[in-house]
Amino acid sequence: MTRVAFLGPDGTFTSQAAVRAAPDGDLVPKATISDVIAAVRDGDVPLGVVPMENSIEGSVNVTLDDLAFGPAGAYIRAEITIPIAMNLLAKTGSALEDITTVRSQPHALAQCRRWLSDHLPTAELQAATSTAEAAREAAAGDGSVAALGPAVAAERFGLEVRAADVHDHDGNTTRFVVLSASMAARTGADKTSIVVFFGEDRPGLLLRILDEFALRGINLTKIESRPTKQALGEYCIFIDCAGHVTDARVAEALRSVHRHAADVRILGSYARADGVVDGPGPADSDAAYAEAADWYARLTGDVSNRI
Amino acid sequence: MTRVAFLGPDGTFTSQAAVRAAPDGDLVPKATISDVIAAVRDGDVPLGVVPMENSIEGSVNVTLDDLAFGPAGAYIRAEITIPIAMNLLAKTGSALEDITTVRSQPHALAQCRRWLSDHLPTAELQAATSTAEAAREAAAGDGSVAALGPAVAAERFGLEVRAADVHDHDGNTTRFVVLSASMAARTGADKTSIVVFFGEDRPGLLLRILDEFALRGINLTKIESRPTKQALGEYCIFIDCAGHVTDARVAEALRSVHRHAADVRILGSYARADGVVDGPGPADSDAAYAEAADWYARLTGDVSNRI
Amino acid sequence: MTRVAFLGPDGTFTSQAAVRAAPDGDLVPKATISDVIAAVRDGDVPLGVVPMENSIEGSVNVTLDDLAFGPAGAYIRAEITIPIAMNLLAKTGSALEDITTVRSQPHALAQCRRWLSDHLPTAELQAATSTAEAAREAAAGDGSVAALGPAVAAERFGLEVRAADVHDHDGNTTRFVVLSASMAARTGADKTSIVVFFGEDRPGLLLRILDEFALRGINLTKIESRPTKQALGEYCIFIDCAGHVTDARVAEALRSVHRHAADVRILGSYARADGVVDGPGPADSDAAYAEAADWYARLTGDVSNRI
Amino acid sequence: MTRVAFLGPDGTFTSQAAVRAAPDGDLVPKATISDVIAAVRDGDVPLGVVPMENSIEGSVNVTLDDLAFGPAGAYIRAEITIPIAMNLLAKTGSALEDITTVRSQPHALAQCRRWLSDHLPTAELQAATSTAEAAREAAAGDGSVAALGPAVAAERFGLEVRAADVHDHDGNTTRFVVLSASMAARTGADKTSIVVFFGEDRPGLLLRILDEFALRGINLTKIESRPTKQALGEYCIFIDCAGHVTDARVAEALRSVHRHAADVRILGSYARADGVVDGPGPADSDAAYAEAADWYARLTGDVSNRI
Repeated sequence: MTRVAFLGPDGTFTSQAAVRAAPDGDLVPKATISDVIAAVRDGDVPLGVVPMENSIEGSVNVTLDDLAFGPAGAYIRAEITIPIAMNLLAKTGSALEDITTVRSQPHALAQCRRWLSDHLPTAELQAATSTAEAAREAAAGDGSVAALGPAVAAERFGLEVRAADVHDHDGNTTRFVVLSASMAARTGADKTSIVVFFGEDRPGLLLRILDEFALRGINLTKIESRPTKQALGEYCIFIDCAGHVTDARVAEALRSVHRHAADVRILGSYARADGVVDGPGPADSDAAYAEAADWYARLTGDVSNRI
Repeated sequence: MTRVAFLGPDGTFTSQAAVRAAPDGDLVPKATISDVIAAVRDGDVPLGVVPMENSIEGSVNVTLDDLAFGPAGAYIRAEITIPIAMNLLAKTGSALEDITTVRSQPHALAQCRRWLSDHLPTAELQAATSTAEAAREAAAGDGSVAALGPAVAAERFGLEVRAADVHDHDGNTTRFVVLSASMAARTGADKTSIVVFFGEDRPGLLLRILDEFALRGINLTKIESRPTKQALGEYCIFIDCAGHVTDARVAEALRSVHRHAADVRILGSYARADGVVDGPGPADSDAAYAEAADWYARLTGDVSNRI
Repeated sequence: MTRVAFLGPDGTFTSQAAVRAAPDGDLVPKATISDVIAAVRDGDVPLGVVPMENSIEGSVNVTLDDLAFGPAGAYIRAEITIPIAMNLLAKTGSALEDITTVRSQPHALAQCRRWLSDHLPTAELQAATSTAEAAREAAAGDGSVAALGPAVAAERFGLEVRAADVHDHDGNTTRFVVLSASMAARTGADKTSIVVFFGEDRPGLLLRILDEFALRGINLTKIESRPTKQALGEYCIFIDCAGHVTDARVAEALRSVHRHAADVRILGSYARADGVVDGPGPADSDAAYAEAADWYARLTGDVSNRI
Repeated sequence: MTRVAFLGPDGTFTSQAAVRAAPDGDLVPKATISDVIAAVRDGDVPLGVVPMENSIEGSVNVTLDDLAFGPAGAYIRAEITIPIAMNLLAKTGSALEDITTVRSQPHALAQCRRWLSDHLPTAELQAATSTAEAAREAAAGDGSVAALGPAVAAERFGLEVRAADVHDHDGNTTRFVVLSASMAARTGADKTSIVVFFGEDRPGLLLRILDEFALRGINLTKIESRPTKQALGEYCIFIDCAGHVTDARVAEALRSVHRHAADVRILGSYARADGVVDGPGPADSDAAYAEAADWYARLTGDVSNRI
């Protein structure tokens, strides 16, 4: 049975994603995102699942930073998107007006700001380290403490859903990534994630990087800058692009970026969750690259480049 | 006395920044970043101070989102950078080995991860809503609870600095912005912050936007994408560029971006904290724009464009 | 009756174009292209007609050079394309095998190279200053001299068309331009011709110039470099672009090019001979420019730019 | 002794260039530029010399067209620049005021237009097929006929230089190219000439092509469009770029252009006449390309791209 490390505890959206990643797997909860990634890197588990990005709150910085700045060796080999439906979870029998404290993971609190200010304007909001921990604490309390979390947490901790779908914005989803020690093979509907490091101040480098992809007909699905933990104003850029690392156009773009950037790290190539085949135009296909290489070799095969 | 709203409570890095913004001002603490921004927008106070970006943790999402998606009317008119030196604050007489719980604002906890795991590996880390609140709770506790925060908080809440400079990375600074209801005048060493909204999926739009600035010799000092709170994959882009909104090259670039993007919001033009004069080359100066306009008008003044 | 100067003599393709330019005009033949252009500049005639470009031989250098380097004041206000059908013109009664000399304007000789080498391989080819002059000389000769030229020249000089359509390539056309002292008004299906001068060695300037047009959605219909008569390797660039000089996108592109180039000369805006309406996309229309200007003025109207 | 075909006859600037190409060579005059190129292609001679471009009159269309549209197999392997000093050549004893006719090759006449109009305003200008032929005819005439040509022609045909340096513009030079059946090896200060064919109407293709070179740090020393002899408005582009066809950056640029254009023909790589070493920056060197290829291979060596 495949062992799947995930950011625990059980009863969270992440545990839902881990089940999706390996329905018959053996789930191994870890205390931190970094612990999950380390377990994959070190070969303790073949697969790991961590949150990457939420449609409202944005990227999960710890995941980005660990993949970008930690030791190499964990590659994204799949992405899974889970709709985030928040619920107010409370003890059986307690009423809404009894609730004076609402606990949850800070992102979850943020996602329900408006509902809370409309329905529980005087409740104290307390940060918890996860939605599951908040639910556990609500279950251990006296009925005045409620938690915000997934419906599955109510079941796990013996709570009731006092109010369902209390999140402020519909369409809230979280994107999780499945990590392994090796890259995934091409499926034909792939995405490649990289992080590019900017050494010194290079004002034109970002433009060049976008140009390298654009000129080869490669669409970018995400671009995000992050500080490199050195000083305000130094950045690296996370880029998700259409295509697989072994597509000729992607390979040439990556090599070009590598020549110009301080460093490039390939985070992985993997099947897109949306299944979109964002393939190349005729001039950017593997066949076109092969044909151009033949043409060049034919013409220049006998020309010495010794100077 | 100028009233300055800031993200309270007192005794935080933000309060330090507020003092810097108006040394003789009347400080008005607010409960949330959004409350500070609203107070400026509504004309309750002439100035507001909120955190914008930390060199380690990245942008402060609530600030970005409120400036980008909230009602218009609050402009950045200055930026202030404050070095973030974290300290372990504890009750007088308590020893490091007595401490079983460490509380702080989650970003502060994150910035001291390594120190905590080296020196207090078994301590429970608890999220607080601010460093000041954590200090207040440490002061109210029994000596087993410590807080991470600025030295000024120790003084304010009667704590001692048990360990100084416990942050993992040197060079940690936070950039605060000073808000007002109107834009600041040009100083000659300015920066302009905008947010650009991408309507539908426009793969080439980001490249075009960077091109609009690059072609006019305008350096970008920051670029960051953020979800627009609609669905995973829809973004807006925050851009900081050299120059003032009234510089001819900046004005033309902004109008061009406005023509192509779904929307553009100018967050403000203000003097750069680093004082760098990143002025235009001869062909991009106001004088060159004026000269080109004269040339064009002279040549075409008598040509009708009626069709 | 409108007086129309043209590159004489009568009986040439240019005279055909002059008739097309002003069917009821008073044709005024001039000895050289420069004389035609000078007559327009000096106000001697309201219109002038000169050849600009042949589909096989390329541009007419004298026309380009005079418009680019001569005094300003003559603008292209229309273009006319004439199919070039070459004929071997000989004296009545002479046979093909009698012909030992073929005279014509050098471009005309070049355009019939293959036919001449197939049918008159031993004939001496002699350069004449125009097809009409060649025809006149053939008419004055003893039957061993033939001319290459338009059918109209046979009629005018009493020759016979010994062989029709002897040009090597079908689709041979010449583009003539009609010059006047002022620019033409916008028709909605216009073209603008400019010449851009490169001062010092500026490797990226051409790319920038093309970018200035491309970013504004302006298609180029022609681009041609020419030496500036100074030293091998110094060039100017002739550009024809879609749109009228008073279109907002064209106006802004021209001003931008003017800021970066050593100099720019507008040769004229005029209705396209092909009638194609190559209009702007929504973001590049005059309305979009006006809307962006309003937006900018509204936002920044009260911001001083005094430093 | 190396046989060198050149555009004859003897006594022209081209013959000067042929001597420079192979000082001890056996000069073989040919009647036309096309004959020279064909002799090289067919292996009749190892070297051929033809004019390519004049600093005043621009490119020599026949040379461009034959290299671009004729059969492949003749490569430029060197370039030679010759200063063009024009002289009025007349019979011994004749005075300037006796001269009523001036003959020369049309380009030569054009280059002396101003001098002729100042000093011989009433002289008839007659086109000759070469400066040498004009000199021969002047020598055969009665003293009223002069020729414009190089000093060497005076010597060869027994004429006197009646007026020296009668060309209108100083700095007039002609660039000749030396052709052979194979490409030249890299010298480190090279230039590469190509011609790119545009199939259908592709407004952005030229910009893309310039971008392909610019992104790889390759400077262009010449760019010129020419009709493809099909219909007005269809063009091909002649490009000279810094670097040798075997430089990694040039090779990749050529393959990229090949993928997007209708066709590309490499006209040759050869040592620059000006000796300028326009080498790559660190990121565009052969070493950087090799390093990037290693990095990519190391990372992706075990990833299958089978779908």
